[in-house]
Amino acid sequence: MSQKILIIGGVALGPKAASRAIRLDPTAEITLIDQDSVISYGGCGIPYYVCGDVAEAEGLRSTSFHSLRDADYFAREKGFAVRTGTRALKIDRQKKQVLIKDVNSGREEILPYDKLVLATGSSPFTPPIPGVEADGIFTISDIHKAVAIKERLSQGRVGRAVVLGGGAIGLEMAEAMADLWGAETTVVEMMDQILPRLIDKNIALMAQRHLEEKGVAAYTSERATSFCVEDGKVTGVKTDKRTIAADLVILAVGVRPNSGLAREAGLAIGSFGGIVVNRRMQTSDPNIYAGGDCVEMPDLVAGGSTYAPMGSLANRQGRVIGSNLAGKPETFDGVVGSFIIKLFDNCVSKTGLSLEAAKSLGFDALAAFVVQADKAHFYPDSSMLYMQMVVEKGTQRVLGVQGIGPNNSSLLARIGAVAGILKYRPTVQDIANLEFPYAPPFAAAMDIINVLANTAQNILEGRNRVINQDEFMERFTNRGASNTLFVDVRAAAQGEPLMAKYGPHWLNIPNNELRQRLDELPADREIVLVCNAGSRSYDAMCMLQSSSKNTVNLQGGIGGLKRVGIIL
Amino acid sequence: MSQKILIIGGVALGPKAASRAIRLDPTAEITLIDQDSVISYGGCGIPYYVCGDVAEAEGLRSTSFHSLRDADYFAREKGFAVRTGTRALKIDRQKKQVLIKDVNSGREEILPYDKLVLATGSSPFTPPIPGVEADGIFTISDIHKAVAIKERLSQGRVGRAVVLGGGAIGLEMAEAMADLWGAETTVVEMMDQILPRLIDKNIALMAQRHLEEKGVAAYTSERATSFCVEDGKVTGVKTDKRTIAADLVILAVGVRPNSGLAREAGLAIGSFGGIVVNRRMQTSDPNIYAGGDCVEMPDLVAGGSTYAPMGSLANRQGRVIGSNLAGKPETFDGVVGSFIIKLFDNCVSKTGLSLEAAKSLGFDALAAFVVQADKAHFYPDSSMLYMQMVVEKGTQRVLGVQGIGPNNSSLLARIGAVAGILKYRPTVQDIANLEFPYAPPFAAAMDIINVLANTAQNILEGRNRVINQDEFMERFTNRGASNTLFVDVRAAAQGEPLMAKYGPHWLNIPNNELRQRLDELPADREIVLVCNAGSRSYDAMCMLQSSSKNTVNLQGGIGGLKRVGIIL
Repeated sequence: MSQKILIIGGVALGPKAASRAIRLDPTAEITLIDQDSVISYGGCGIPYYVCGDVAEAEGLRSTSFHSLRDADYFAREKGFAVRTGTRALKIDRQKKQVLIKDVNSGREEILPYDKLVLATGSSPFTPPIPGVEADGIFTISDIHKAVAIKERLSQGRVGRAVVLGGGAIGLEMAEAMADLWGAETTVVEMMDQILPRLIDKNIALMAQRHLEEKGVAAYTSERATSFCVEDGKVTGVKTDKRTIAADLVILAVGVRPNSGLAREAGLAIGSFGGIVVNRRMQTSDPNIYAGGDCVEMPDLVAGGSTYAPMGSLANRQGRVIGSNLAGKPETFDGVVGSFIIKLFDNCVSKTGLSLEAAKSLGFDALAAFVVQADKAHFYPDSSMLYMQMVVEKGTQRVLGVQGIGPNNSSLLARIGAVAGILKYRPTVQDIANLEFPYAPPFAAAMDIINVLANTAQNILEGRNRVINQDEFMERFTNRGASNTLFVDVRAAAQGEPLMAKYGPHWLNIPNNELRQRLDELPADREIVLVCNAGSRSYDAMCMLQSSSKNTVNLQGGIGGLKRVGIIL
Repeated sequence: MSQKILIIGGVALGPKAASRAIRLDPTAEITLIDQDSVISYGGCGIPYYVCGDVAEAEGLRSTSFHSLRDADYFAREKGFAVRTGTRALKIDRQKKQVLIKDVNSGREEILPYDKLVLATGSSPFTPPIPGVEADGIFTISDIHKAVAIKERLSQGRVGRAVVLGGGAIGLEMAEAMADLWGAETTVVEMMDQILPRLIDKNIALMAQRHLEEKGVAAYTSERATSFCVEDGKVTGVKTDKRTIAADLVILAVGVRPNSGLAREAGLAIGSFGGIVVNRRMQTSDPNIYAGGDCVEMPDLVAGGSTYAPMGSLANRQGRVIGSNLAGKPETFDGVVGSFIIKLFDNCVSKTGLSLEAAKSLGFDALAAFVVQADKAHFYPDSSMLYMQMVVEKGTQRVLGVQGIGPNNSSLLARIGAVAGILKYRPTVQDIANLEFPYAPPFAAAMDIINVLANTAQNILEGRNRVINQDEFMERFTNRGASNTLFVDVRAAAQGEPLMAKYGPHWLNIPNNELRQRLDELPADREIVLVCNAGSRSYDAMCMLQSSSKNTVNLQGGIGGLKRVGIIL
């Protein structure tokens, strides 16, 4: 007897679940409804459509074989029915039926189901700021908004743009508007860094410097208080610090799970407002599945739940739901929190927890920061990677890794190598010996991912007493008043100019002279060891180990300082 | 009381072990000896020095801060003694001393040790082929050979070159000679594919086609029988099939562990001829450590031992030995077999076992082959990845993954993502949901690594009955005599020309018409379903599931055929 499957929502998870279910069970009668007229599009591709990399909106709705994924496509090629312009109003779990409404005709109808799938997604949060209803203020909620934004850009109507929110979508949209269309673009972020909660502040600062190099202003710790509106149209954004002129404003301050329908049906809702599901993606009603942006997920690193609205997770969960719909038990265990973003010529990526996130979740954690080339150092055309590994003290467990690098797959490769392991609770020793494939054009013999783990271990075990860029600058700025001596162990060509500039506070003793010049180092002052990347200064610290000097080591060295915009 | 540490061998592992040991224990008295005059060089960089990417041989011997790593460098910057031109003749384990000889003066001396490290590396095998002693025939054993080869190339003395051995070093050298220097280069490989034992034949064939596109001939299943020699100089290579003119010949037919010294000292030697070590890298004598190219290692995927001479492993093992020397217990658990190589504009990489290797080790295994872009399919400038996953039947365990892609880090990223997990014995389900970071410029929402696992699962569970390129061609070549019908489910624009060309054997029914045209498919013939990449043909197979047609699916589709050089 064929089962009736009803799926509410047709962007990512819905079509995936339906396609998988009907492959496994071709007898299933599947209907997918969506209130929109357009379904099955790559929402994550919207910024690339807006910037012009993807010429037509249809590009986001087509298969790699150039078939447009509309209702007809799914009926013909996949064998399930799609009803667009159809909204679900109410679930009757007792009768196993859903009240739906045609958004054009207003006609209501009841659809029965044996199994129901909630793929209702998320909605961008619209902050209650005075003037937010003005023309020219957009959320990035669907493909129609994207078309409207691109229309204004391509018509030359956007000289100045403001993005509220320095998260992933905000930054991708900022790049899209600034890069090809040349809009003078400003990002305003309430928190004290861009990409808050995703990556740590030092890496975020490096990303922000790059945005600024590319002409995008980013104001952090700043809050929009109202919009300037003339004739119903937005003309600017007032913040607690300034007024920024704007022809167009993007609201990208986060999304909320669309869990209202589920909540009204009495299904369990979690602390993030997402629908609660088990490992088989079943809600508290076993005949109702849910996945994608409307659910919360177990956090495989931190424990507990998390909310991770990502198209990639929706697709993978959709397949798991499809299998279960067809009677084949499969599970989705949770998320580790992988993330990647292109920012002009850079790439920022992470998996697992940032240091700040780890600490806020109660982990006693620290971070190791390493600067290293993505290829063998002798191989030409390598790029520098700036990476940070977050580890738990005591257990030496690796909680996450993040970084910034060039706009290619070299950072992805390192983050991806850790993403898959995190659920096995690796220690620094596991990553120290991770068998990352090696040849000079692709990696170093001791690749940065191995070096990060080694560095973390040295820090955890007290051999490498590090300070980060912030802590360095605190000492450096106060160098007149404090007792700190900066010892630059690089060659004279690099070290001497700074010694000349900063006098008694800065001493240049190249590493190869250090053993002979120990007596030049005071025993009663804190010594900050400095080199280009933090590795020779670690060597120096080891040399000084038995000399009872009071040393700390600048992680990432002068190279790391430069990357956050500090030129000594 | 300071301990005496003696290290024999100074290329990769030796200096690493010494540097780590002295960082942890600055009181240690460490001496490193090497019979060569040159130590601590990036041996894996030799092809890039020969081709000119690395201008000077010193580039391979310098730190990223441009310090030359000679004996002086290690004494001054690291604090241990290096004696070059010094050969170890004999180990006296009872007295804990080593008899050494100055290779220049011939003077012998005895060095005592508390701990000894064998970092004796490997030697290239010189096949006993008549004429092998002629001038112009080289192994790639050290940097001196590299200098001599480059000299001949740069002096224009090499119009034609032959490489014996189609393994990694052979192919890297072939590219080095052909690319910049324009030498007409031929690779001769005894086995029936290039990169034997590393990757499977289908991927190897794709790599070979690329070599051929770049003007490098590769003859497989061919054996050199003698060298043509005139006036003591090589002028050609005779094989069992032809004579190839050559001004220069590279012997790259494998390396053997230098375990003679250890064997004579009575240390345990394994089945590969490598020194046997435990997880702490101790030999059968706990005061003697060994690592790098002279040891064998546990195979973490297959079980048992393996021989994996790689500079990257040597470095990582060197650090572990250094820690243990300093009294800090650390382990190196074994290898999973990661590998990567640049071939002109391509990259070939793998981790774990190939299908052939898995089968020869007794695994009941199969392979899933997938062709997919490295970025979201709608994102511009993506490149195709051709990847294969090897899985064990029954357990659904993933044994390895391999592939070919563009010369950047996109393939590395996918192989690296699996490399770290293999030791945890992942199943296809683990990789299906592997949280590879996603954004359109870097990956697909369902990335190829996830799709590989999904495809493997569908094959393992009998839903996707695949044939590979070989099996397809067998049927296609015999199409006149056999009963097979080829059903091309692509659009008419792609399918109709082949239908016109191959008449009754080739039928074009686009996927979206398949449900309506079921009666055109015979029930008594084997139907080979074909599309561009193998995914729509899988869809077709699912549609036909309940129709009791006898179907198989060409893995990787027409795209995969093209990549191995088959144009229908």
